[in-house]
Amino acid sequence: MAGKETIIAEERLLALATRALASGGVSEEEAALAARVLVLADMFGLHTHGIIRIPQYLGRVRIGGIDARADVVVERVAPGLAVVHGHNGIGPLVGMRALQAALEGARTVGIGAAFANGSNHFGPIVPYCFLAAQEGCASFIASNATTTIAPWGGRDTRVGNNPLGMGFPSPGGDPIILDIALSVAARGKMRALAAEGKSMPAGWAVDNEGRPTTDPKAGLGGFLLPVGGHKGYGLAVMVDLFAGLLSGAAFLTHVSAWDKNPEAAQNLGHVFLVINAGKLASNTTLAERIADFRSILTSTPAADPAAPVMLPGDREMAAYRRAREEGVRVLTADLAEVEKLTTAAP
Amino acid sequence: MAGKETIIAEERLLALATRALASGGVSEEEAALAARVLVLADMFGLHTHGIIRIPQYLGRVRIGGIDARADVVVERVAPGLAVVHGHNGIGPLVGMRALQAALEGARTVGIGAAFANGSNHFGPIVPYCFLAAQEGCASFIASNATTTIAPWGGRDTRVGNNPLGMGFPSPGGDPIILDIALSVAARGKMRALAAEGKSMPAGWAVDNEGRPTTDPKAGLGGFLLPVGGHKGYGLAVMVDLFAGLLSGAAFLTHVSAWDKNPEAAQNLGHVFLVINAGKLASNTTLAERIADFRSILTSTPAADPAAPVMLPGDREMAAYRRAREEGVRVLTADLAEVEKLTTAAP
Repeated sequence: MAGKETIIAEERLLALATRALASGGVSEEEAALAARVLVLADMFGLHTHGIIRIPQYLGRVRIGGIDARADVVVERVAPGLAVVHGHNGIGPLVGMRALQAALEGARTVGIGAAFANGSNHFGPIVPYCFLAAQEGCASFIASNATTTIAPWGGRDTRVGNNPLGMGFPSPGGDPIILDIALSVAARGKMRALAAEGKSMPAGWAVDNEGRPTTDPKAGLGGFLLPVGGHKGYGLAVMVDLFAGLLSGAAFLTHVSAWDKNPEAAQNLGHVFLVINAGKLASNTTLAERIADFRSILTSTPAADPAAPVMLPGDREMAAYRRAREEGVRVLTADLAEVEKLTTAAP
Repeated sequence: MAGKETIIAEERLLALATRALASGGVSEEEAALAARVLVLADMFGLHTHGIIRIPQYLGRVRIGGIDARADVVVERVAPGLAVVHGHNGIGPLVGMRALQAALEGARTVGIGAAFANGSNHFGPIVPYCFLAAQEGCASFIASNATTTIAPWGGRDTRVGNNPLGMGFPSPGGDPIILDIALSVAARGKMRALAAEGKSMPAGWAVDNEGRPTTDPKAGLGGFLLPVGGHKGYGLAVMVDLFAGLLSGAAFLTHVSAWDKNPEAAQNLGHVFLVINAGKLASNTTLAERIADFRSILTSTPAADPAAPVMLPGDREMAAYRRAREEGVRVLTADLAEVEKLTTAAP
């Protein structure tokens, strides 16, 4: 993190985040649910998707872009399938309702999916995969997003840099969790390089004419390149079909950009898919096989001996354990912004 | 295709492929099921994964590497979940049994998954996604594979170039189907460049010391690089957790290489996951939304006007329609190999 840090107990941060969201009109119970996602994000070290989002969400609530009092409705369409109508509620609340609906399917028929529409930015995916793993479930979770990527071979941004996560439970150990977006690099990294007046590596983005560039400013005005060319483009398309089209949400260019039109409903869509791993293997078998799996990977000779091979999510889980032991590290300035919201409440 | 081609009617090719597989000991009914996958592969233009595989599969049957008479057992562990024990049967048969088991879940509870172990090379993923789409289902299908990729930051091949597919049904139109492996480039492309004495682009592979190389021979002796670095590595890991570890199959370096040890059982694992789209939207709504989705992408200004923007699977679906109209194009030499097998049978 860049800036002065504060270490705060998990429970205190959760209570504070809950009060802050409630100050914007979210019911106490729903605020607690949404706050859980954002506090977990900070515990995982994913600070750009943590409590820092609360002032941003509530800023949109104030101008009518998000409905803090939305009635999030879960419609069960089959024993294993649910549609979650977010009705423009805050994203992590819609996300948590969808996760709960998917988990209900996994409990009753071994596998469950929930498709959410009418949603907003729902935080990072790691917390949802983590919570699914705590319930003994493997997960596949994804969302569509504002368009920032050009279709492969095209010269206009018409696909979102859609985040995609997969999680795997590990009885008695750390779950394995992947959470990636489908561009080579994030816009945030490009903005940082642009601010420092530095160039960026080739292959991150092209300018607004579709020409390769190493100028991060030109890239920010152009569009991001997907990982693996047509492969990343294809994955981004499939995620939007599942999360956006099938859920009944907006898709592709129909998704409104929260930064450009903060007062407009985004109608984002998410897909939550969870599998009850306990129906497929006992905890003992799973634990043994995962220990073997993990050791095959971590024992790989490292290209740089100072950087041993890791599994997806290892960095986040190490941050999480540290946060459980020592308290959650957040930027002091971010914390102050959230505290300000709670004191402004009646 | 490189070489003389023959055009053959779909039904004739299917009958021929079925007889060829049956000549190796596969029962008539099971041979027809497996042949369907390989003939569809040829219809989609995926000839490296089509009927050309039959002599290879039967070669392994002869030396005990594959059991043509294996009893493929479907074990239903929950209304939405099945485990398919392949017992070292031919891959496309295990794959078809798993697809059927997953579709049964989708019919009864809206969503279904099947986890297959004890399998072998199961063909390309496109045919399975296509058949799921014909049943009105969206799909997520993946397999593990022999290790050819190094973990990110590592210097040894310990992860497979695991294929991953996603399909989406399109009522009255072409399904949208993505089928990718997770390396930047395929070993086949590198072999072709090596044979021509050409160099390969940077970023495809590293040599056996983990050093970047543009020499395809050095790359073939080293290891493939995953798309998007840690992103492709992470996806390959997650696929192996779902397809290999959770299914009860071998995983990572435990997977035996069919080309190096053709006489050994591979114990490959697959995951088949299908969603009954009709439970989420009517055919009319789906068709309308997909038409809109498709037109947003295909109307993107193209970087090269001669190469309009496409959706995943468009190329394969065009080949499929042509094969339906004109017959299936196969290499004359490949066809002769398969015919030889049928005449050798008693």
